[in-house]
Amino acid sequence: MPNLVQPKVLKGFRDFLPETEISRKEIQTTLENTFKSFGMVPIDTPILEYTEVLLGKGSGETDKQIYRFQDHGKRDVAMRFDLTVPFARFMAANLNNLYLPFKRYHISKVWRGENTQRGRYREFTQCDFDIVGVDSPEADFEILSIMYESLTALGIPDIHIHISHRGIFNAFLEYLGVKENSAEILRIVDKLAKIGEEKVLEQLEELTNKEKASKILEYISADGSFDEILSKLEELSGGPTEGSKRLGTIRKMMLNCGIEDLFILNPSITRGLDYYTGIVYETFLDELPAIGSVCSGGRYNNLASIYSKTEMPGVGSSIGLDRLMAALEELGVSSSKKSLTKVLIMNMDDSLKGHYFNIAAKLRKAGINTEVFLEQKKMKNQFTFAERKNIPFAIIIGEDEYKENKVSVKNLETRENFNMTNIEDAIKIIGGNKE
Amino acid sequence: MPNLVQPKVLKGFRDFLPETEISRKEIQTTLENTFKSFGMVPIDTPILEYTEVLLGKGSGETDKQIYRFQDHGKRDVAMRFDLTVPFARFMAANLNNLYLPFKRYHISKVWRGENTQRGRYREFTQCDFDIVGVDSPEADFEILSIMYESLTALGIPDIHIHISHRGIFNAFLEYLGVKENSAEILRIVDKLAKIGEEKVLEQLEELTNKEKASKILEYISADGSFDEILSKLEELSGGPTEGSKRLGTIRKMMLNCGIEDLFILNPSITRGLDYYTGIVYETFLDELPAIGSVCSGGRYNNLASIYSKTEMPGVGSSIGLDRLMAALEELGVSSSKKSLTKVLIMNMDDSLKGHYFNIAAKLRKAGINTEVFLEQKKMKNQFTFAERKNIPFAIIIGEDEYKENKVSVKNLETRENFNMTNIEDAIKIIGGNKE
Repeated sequence: MPNLVQPKVLKGFRDFLPETEISRKEIQTTLENTFKSFGMVPIDTPILEYTEVLLGKGSGETDKQIYRFQDHGKRDVAMRFDLTVPFARFMAANLNNLYLPFKRYHISKVWRGENTQRGRYREFTQCDFDIVGVDSPEADFEILSIMYESLTALGIPDIHIHISHRGIFNAFLEYLGVKENSAEILRIVDKLAKIGEEKVLEQLEELTNKEKASKILEYISADGSFDEILSKLEELSGGPTEGSKRLGTIRKMMLNCGIEDLFILNPSITRGLDYYTGIVYETFLDELPAIGSVCSGGRYNNLASIYSKTEMPGVGSSIGLDRLMAALEELGVSSSKKSLTKVLIMNMDDSLKGHYFNIAAKLRKAGINTEVFLEQKKMKNQFTFAERKNIPFAIIIGEDEYKENKVSVKNLETRENFNMTNIEDAIKIIGGNKE
Repeated sequence: MPNLVQPKVLKGFRDFLPETEISRKEIQTTLENTFKSFGMVPIDTPILEYTEVLLGKGSGETDKQIYRFQDHGKRDVAMRFDLTVPFARFMAANLNNLYLPFKRYHISKVWRGENTQRGRYREFTQCDFDIVGVDSPEADFEILSIMYESLTALGIPDIHIHISHRGIFNAFLEYLGVKENSAEILRIVDKLAKIGEEKVLEQLEELTNKEKASKILEYISADGSFDEILSKLEELSGGPTEGSKRLGTIRKMMLNCGIEDLFILNPSITRGLDYYTGIVYETFLDELPAIGSVCSGGRYNNLASIYSKTEMPGVGSSIGLDRLMAALEELGVSSSKKSLTKVLIMNMDDSLKGHYFNIAAKLRKAGINTEVFLEQKKMKNQFTFAERKNIPFAIIIGEDEYKENKVSVKNLETRENFNMTNIEDAIKIIGGNKE
């Protein structure tokens, strides 16, 4: 016998066993149904792209993490590291075949050769949804609504979406006379939760001066009701700006839909990246603050600038599905089904094999997920199989049942027996035609 | 302005625009629902694996086509080229956490750096379903049933599944005294459809002799009813064998379920590969013979022999989703929806923005996929958008409607108008709470 190959997976990569995969698929379906209810459409893009296409101007960090190699035709190719860059490329390549505003979602895997400490994976699933080709408060509000509806549909209690506006922050920095330092300021401010007020203040002072640093801290820690904070931000940036007016309009739409309590105006949210130009947001679960934001994003003014001269303003959001799944599990609102089978038909009599499959087909027609045990084994083994697969019902057909065209049903959870029933009654007992 | 990066995709790779992706997702959902109705469970595996794990003993052909490179940790890694090898590795790695028989499905992308001529892609989607850990006619029959039910659920008319049995063929070759040449004989026979009887006979004669070659041809071209052919095969292989008895049992189960007409015993089906040991099958669409088999597979006696000493007999089948989609399109049974939106709420009055979203939320609650047009544009532009997205209804809310808490509905297909209706009536008109 030749030596065996060890069946190991790469570090940072995972197998998904049925229990996890069933739950992952259910979450995806729930999210997709919400996206579709808002008129979003799905797209897909290749997993491999030209490296030049993926990195474009490139950030050093991504460069190091990307899975990159030469293909058979000596092309420099790479695996996508997010869904945003391929989407930008997609829009530039297919603009003539699309209509604007274009509302798409994309749920798929991405790869980063990151350090795998702290539960980070090298292969993980992202779920992005964006509205491109329109710069309006309606679009901003719609993304917020989709975020809220998606997480609610998953059964997550007590969601709060923290929003802020980069346009107002920029106006404020300009008014303060530190606009040229905005990239560094963003980077420092973004660390607030991690390093605390004192350190942030220190670093800001180093970059600007004592007075300006304290003004910036005043801005990002503004407190009170939504409207109070908005007024404060306007005051700090020298009066109403386009951004603050936009945020005011969005606030009115929230009030109109009666969902204003879900949103917290939190000026410390800046989303580091230069990319964002308008509203930005992060989503926290009241019961799991430590897990961080499960859904974040914002408005950008030009999606595909590295590929196309056509300006494509947009607004979008991204859910890290792995983090979300961990959250659902911790909250106890994730399913943990071992299978989706409702009933197991016991395999008892060699001469009745064909009959078992015939009954199984009838149950499936009634919407009941049904298995026939696929060989003749001791009843005990067959019941153990049902138990390991969490199958709630068994159907027993021996010679007696067969002769009278009946079945016996056993509820494996309650141990109740329904002997010699008609197939129609069995369907009712098992709960067909319902789900 | 910096030079633009050309937004091109790699040869053999594709973007999926909404129309295609909606249809692809619908097909997947239909297939998954069928699999689940038989008690199959989903799994997922990494897209990158150790090259040694994927290639194992390796076939020369696959070696050349695989996308292989060194990762950041200098590991020799590769992208999966099918779903069978990762499944074998999965079973060996996770056997202790699973139960047997294990029935799994897996729908996902795979990659091969093939020649892209003749509509072959380098990135394509496979859909595999297998039953592992049991060697029984029940399991063989169940895979056949799933094949039939899956394709029927997709609305494909006139399916025929051609089956054959490698065990009988092997017994026949042994009886004929040419067992040692079986690999070459399989390879030649597999080309029957491509090169024709004469060439096959010629090549077989070269390998064996005139008499034996003509016997082999007699075997693979045996004609008549299922039972006649089965008798003929038994006769040619010197009497009933384990394989022919198994096929007889499966035949009885077909008769018992009244689906015997779907299956053709076709001894020319051998499925080239050495891998198979029992029943083998290919599926042809009567209306599209040229497209070839859309669903093929068979029984193998040891899935994971390169990773594990545990024997895992199994039976399975694979659907090439890209070929299937092409077939559905040609048959005119694929959907071609531009979106899944049922109604567009026109954006007409700046002061009613919040109200539009409020009405949209009500429609969504009634199960109607609803969009609000996301900016104020001319009505003409908004109608054009609805048309391009194939949205069947529009809702118009001006000041009059708003004041009386009504809406006006326009059926964009029939041009019918329903002016000043209640929201409840509008829901009925649009067809909510139905699908």
